[in-house]
Amino acid sequence: MREIKLPDSSINGEYVFTRKALYYETDQMGIIHHSNYIRWFEEARLAYLEEKGCSYKELEARKIIIPVISAECRYKKSVHYGDTVDICLHLTGFNGVKFSVAYRVLDHETGELMAEGETGHCFLNEKMQPFRLKKEAPDVYDFFKTCLEESADV
Amino acid sequence: MREIKLPDSSINGEYVFTRKALYYETDQMGIIHHSNYIRWFEEARLAYLEEKGCSYKELEARKIIIPVISAECRYKKSVHYGDTVDICLHLTGFNGVKFSVAYRVLDHETGELMAEGETGHCFLNEKMQPFRLKKEAPDVYDFFKTCLEESADV
Amino acid sequence: MREIKLPDSSINGEYVFTRKALYYETDQMGIIHHSNYIRWFEEARLAYLEEKGCSYKELEARKIIIPVISAECRYKKSVHYGDTVDICLHLTGFNGVKFSVAYRVLDHETGELMAEGETGHCFLNEKMQPFRLKKEAPDVYDFFKTCLEESADV
Amino acid sequence: MREIKLPDSSINGEYVFTRKALYYETDQMGIIHHSNYIRWFEEARLAYLEEKGCSYKELEARKIIIPVISAECRYKKSVHYGDTVDICLHLTGFNGVKFSVAYRVLDHETGELMAEGETGHCFLNEKMQPFRLKKEAPDVYDFFKTCLEESADV
Repeated sequence: MREIKLPDSSINGEYVFTRKALYYETDQMGIIHHSNYIRWFEEARLAYLEEKGCSYKELEARKIIIPVISAECRYKKSVHYGDTVDICLHLTGFNGVKFSVAYRVLDHETGELMAEGETGHCFLNEKMQPFRLKKEAPDVYDFFKTCLEESADV
Repeated sequence: MREIKLPDSSINGEYVFTRKALYYETDQMGIIHHSNYIRWFEEARLAYLEEKGCSYKELEARKIIIPVISAECRYKKSVHYGDTVDICLHLTGFNGVKFSVAYRVLDHETGELMAEGETGHCFLNEKMQPFRLKKEAPDVYDFFKTCLEESADV
Repeated sequence: MREIKLPDSSINGEYVFTRKALYYETDQMGIIHHSNYIRWFEEARLAYLEEKGCSYKELEARKIIIPVISAECRYKKSVHYGDTVDICLHLTGFNGVKFSVAYRVLDHETGELMAEGETGHCFLNEKMQPFRLKKEAPDVYDFFKTCLEESADV
Repeated sequence: MREIKLPDSSINGEYVFTRKALYYETDQMGIIHHSNYIRWFEEARLAYLEEKGCSYKELEARKIIIPVISAECRYKKSVHYGDTVDICLHLTGFNGVKFSVAYRVLDHETGELMAEGETGHCFLNEKMQPFRLKKEAPDVYDFFKTCLEESADV
């Protein structure tokens, strides 16, 4: 077994997800295609939920579906194949019906801001209908409430 | 040769790009994964430029690069595999340095609004640096100016 | 309404699916990323099933799942953004349990062979288990049998 | 800093690349879409080259392009969102003009074989033309020769 050092996964309340930019994510402009940042947001968001103890796999098993209702990204600098990026995220809102997440994509070496964005989400049951999270899954309600409180320091 | 009827590609100044939602674009939620809408916007935008007589392939051959500097989508209804969607777009801004495009994704059968979004773009040369479009490529400048004027009716 | 001419969708028993290569399918080599051909095969295969009267959407609604058990592609020439390709396919085998499809990717302008490949498939029920197609869905069995016979001329 | 344990990156001459299956890689069958395995092969192959001291980023900077000329995958078991897989690879051939790589995708927990495949590659210069690797980049030639020798034990 070899050991590797990873940066802290949480800095000042922000969760940090570290990832390499992949070759198949490039386009012929020679940079990472912009659509992939939306996928990176998802990847970081689901890693955050899992690390916090509420994996999306379990939520789906409990018939709680969390679709994306909005996604936005503002691109500052181009990310290239082989670059390592830190995707820093924190919750910006949760009211029992919806929640929102903010993201910053930083160059892992320089800390430079490469992109930033937000996503919005709601909670649906297996029939893809809204439901009362607080009443029907109070532990999940409390989980997101705690996540929001922890994000207040960011 | 068989003939097929397509809807008008332009209605009231809005360009309409028609497309089927593909199986490999679905996710295990049973709907089209949200990141694909950002790709559909690109697909529709590049088809629009080509139809208007200024294909992005030619622009790149002339060393004019048009990266995305922002992208946003708000999801209203889920699109499913096999659905046909109309992606309606028009220019919302152009100042010689940047331009912006607005999109509506409609169900082709019902006309229902499935999603809407915007993208922002700038013009770079082959070294990925900003340049004076009006001076160095006046025909392209005029092209985008005309596109913006035509979009005013939307 | 405008009318466009499409090439015959079937030539000598081979089904022909015509498609443009998209910008987001390129990589920084300046060509279409090789993984997308596997997706094009799916796109063409599902269009073929639908055109023949047995859409995969209906099959899934009937709880008949057709996963891919093998996929192969041999790349001859690079396809570039903006190129139009014809994906020609025909069934190469069907025995009630499995079926296989062969594909040729041709440049639409020149007819040049860009790539060729095969995929293999089986039939599963909604529990992802094999089942007797001939007994439980005889119309689907007959459909694939007919497809195979029609492909014999290729 | 937190420490995590990773499996040995090399077992009996086989390089092992460990990866989680991502949500956006699923399709509505509820499994990882088959086209992603071809991308995982690339991801593992490029990580292997980098780990061995010859990153593809540097090769491209030296105008050595390594396109894929064939890719094949045989799917044994479905991989699901959240599963961790080991992608084990080794070189199966190198003759100065082409090389080939074999892959096995194992479930990280159980060691079960999920898929296996091969890719073939050639060496091109920046004009996408073949060239004499042994003469024009002897260090790269030696690198691949060594990789092949190390793979002989697998």
